[in-house]
Amino acid sequence: MPELRKDPITGRWVIISTDRARRPNDFLKQSVKIEGGRFCPFCPGHEDKTPPEVLAFRPGGGANTPGWTLRVVPNKFPALRVEGEMLREGEGLYDKMNGVGAHEVLIESPDHQATLATMDERQVADLLWGFRDRVHDLKKDTRLLYVLLFKNHGESAGASLEHCHSQLIALPIVPKRVEEELQGAKRYYDFRERCVYCDIVQQELASNSRLVIETPEFVSVCPFAARFPFETWIIPRKHNSHFESIQEKEIHNLAWVLKTTLQKMDKALELPAYNLIIHTAPVQDGPIDSYHWHIELIPKLTRVAGFEWGSGFYINPTPPEESARYLRGTP
Amino acid sequence: MPELRKDPITGRWVIISTDRARRPNDFLKQSVKIEGGRFCPFCPGHEDKTPPEVLAFRPGGGANTPGWTLRVVPNKFPALRVEGEMLREGEGLYDKMNGVGAHEVLIESPDHQATLATMDERQVADLLWGFRDRVHDLKKDTRLLYVLLFKNHGESAGASLEHCHSQLIALPIVPKRVEEELQGAKRYYDFRERCVYCDIVQQELASNSRLVIETPEFVSVCPFAARFPFETWIIPRKHNSHFESIQEKEIHNLAWVLKTTLQKMDKALELPAYNLIIHTAPVQDGPIDSYHWHIELIPKLTRVAGFEWGSGFYINPTPPEESARYLRGTP
Repeated sequence: MPELRKDPITGRWVIISTDRARRPNDFLKQSVKIEGGRFCPFCPGHEDKTPPEVLAFRPGGGANTPGWTLRVVPNKFPALRVEGEMLREGEGLYDKMNGVGAHEVLIESPDHQATLATMDERQVADLLWGFRDRVHDLKKDTRLLYVLLFKNHGESAGASLEHCHSQLIALPIVPKRVEEELQGAKRYYDFRERCVYCDIVQQELASNSRLVIETPEFVSVCPFAARFPFETWIIPRKHNSHFESIQEKEIHNLAWVLKTTLQKMDKALELPAYNLIIHTAPVQDGPIDSYHWHIELIPKLTRVAGFEWGSGFYINPTPPEESARYLRGTP
Repeated sequence: MPELRKDPITGRWVIISTDRARRPNDFLKQSVKIEGGRFCPFCPGHEDKTPPEVLAFRPGGGANTPGWTLRVVPNKFPALRVEGEMLREGEGLYDKMNGVGAHEVLIESPDHQATLATMDERQVADLLWGFRDRVHDLKKDTRLLYVLLFKNHGESAGASLEHCHSQLIALPIVPKRVEEELQGAKRYYDFRERCVYCDIVQQELASNSRLVIETPEFVSVCPFAARFPFETWIIPRKHNSHFESIQEKEIHNLAWVLKTTLQKMDKALELPAYNLIIHTAPVQDGPIDSYHWHIELIPKLTRVAGFEWGSGFYINPTPPEESARYLRGTP
């Protein structure tokens, strides 16, 4: 009997097919293989092929020269621009405004062949520091209300260049899904006087059935109402609404948890394409008792969500308990 | 300068890249070609390869025999089942319930090579009658609160069989996106005392810039805050919240508008894969003044929405005015 499950934060229902569960081998394999060989604007020595860097970690040497371990540059084809006034206007019943914001690329390693699963843990930590530092810098511009931190890994997940990179988009609005999460978490908090994510962490640690990794600082779990096969969330155990207030100790632990979760996915699912999104509170807001930042990892296994993103209604052919069991069992 | 646009119904903001608009030729082409040649369970003569039909239009002959023009059968691998009790239960902080519902397939034509764009108009009308009749039948089961009517055309849009077919999923809950649309339209109605979709139809007819097709009964438009290139909505001009209360005259007109819109897409975009979703009110509700059923057509042109369905934040590289201009200009 299939099961309908409700996401405790957003209230979204999902169909979980429990009777004909799909296993890792049932999915079409489109392994992300890094070919190399072509000219790459992100490789060391090509620093002049990107806009000048806004942040770089390098032990020595000048800006926009090789020697960096992480390099952050504005996107050459930005979806939004920092320049310009923030005009809002109407067009009959419609509303629009100038696309003020920022769109940046975080080049995660000088090594063209590296991935978050294969690179050094310190390198993964560098990316997390990079995300953190950029948010702290961008939030000084009080027009920017939200910073979306994300990674598309592999062509089928939307990556256009294969050299490992993440992105950020700083926005003058708070995206609707973020509002929805904030409001859903607030409703739970108002009712129970506890953070829903803190409760999820407790319940997952107690039940163990959807747990992938547990450390003193983080849990990696397949969520109860997962929309996709092998969807995995990484949640800090300590309550904190804003990713950018992460502490040093947590960054090191998160680097390990993230790398290890992705290694498990790479092995269990044969180098899948995936999307990584950091869900965090709006940058201009103070700490929020009811919201809790976390990472959502979504491997792209099914051909396409079909009508699903159109209707907001998801059918997941792999129960999260099965996904977690496979990932746990993968060394 | 890119532009941020707000969807007047849901309040969702979208980035429209106005300065480097992508034209039909800029998208990767994955034309949907019907190969045929393989065994097809939907072709006439193979009626015993599907579960027994729940509806068929055939001039003569017995059930589950050839001679039909439209045939509706339960999905062989249903996401939900009609049998079983509707039990709701908790699991700690989580909620779940039995997957009670229906999952049916509408085989749109006996011709394996047909598509909605190439088949006879009467055949398209038959599909619309089929949708309508099935909703009327399913809503008698008062446990079922919503019927999702949709079509995945082409493998990259999620179709697993190439013989032209649509699907329906009847649900014991109202999906979140539907609730969101209903509530957004209600907010507009409470404020303006008019239906937002009726207002959209008026404004689009007046401005003309996003209009694709206009008939006495329907408009086909690229919406102001389109999430995707060439996203197109077909909206009835007369207010009506429920698709299933469509009138005969409207069905014939809609068949022409739908076929013609898809023909234009096929020509302009070289046989794209697409999703078609009928947005309509919950089936157990009476007529709603603030909501207005419509069809959303989304060709799959960009490789994948990437982080977009995860964040609910969309970047559209083709302004809807451009999309509409191309479609209008395509005979």
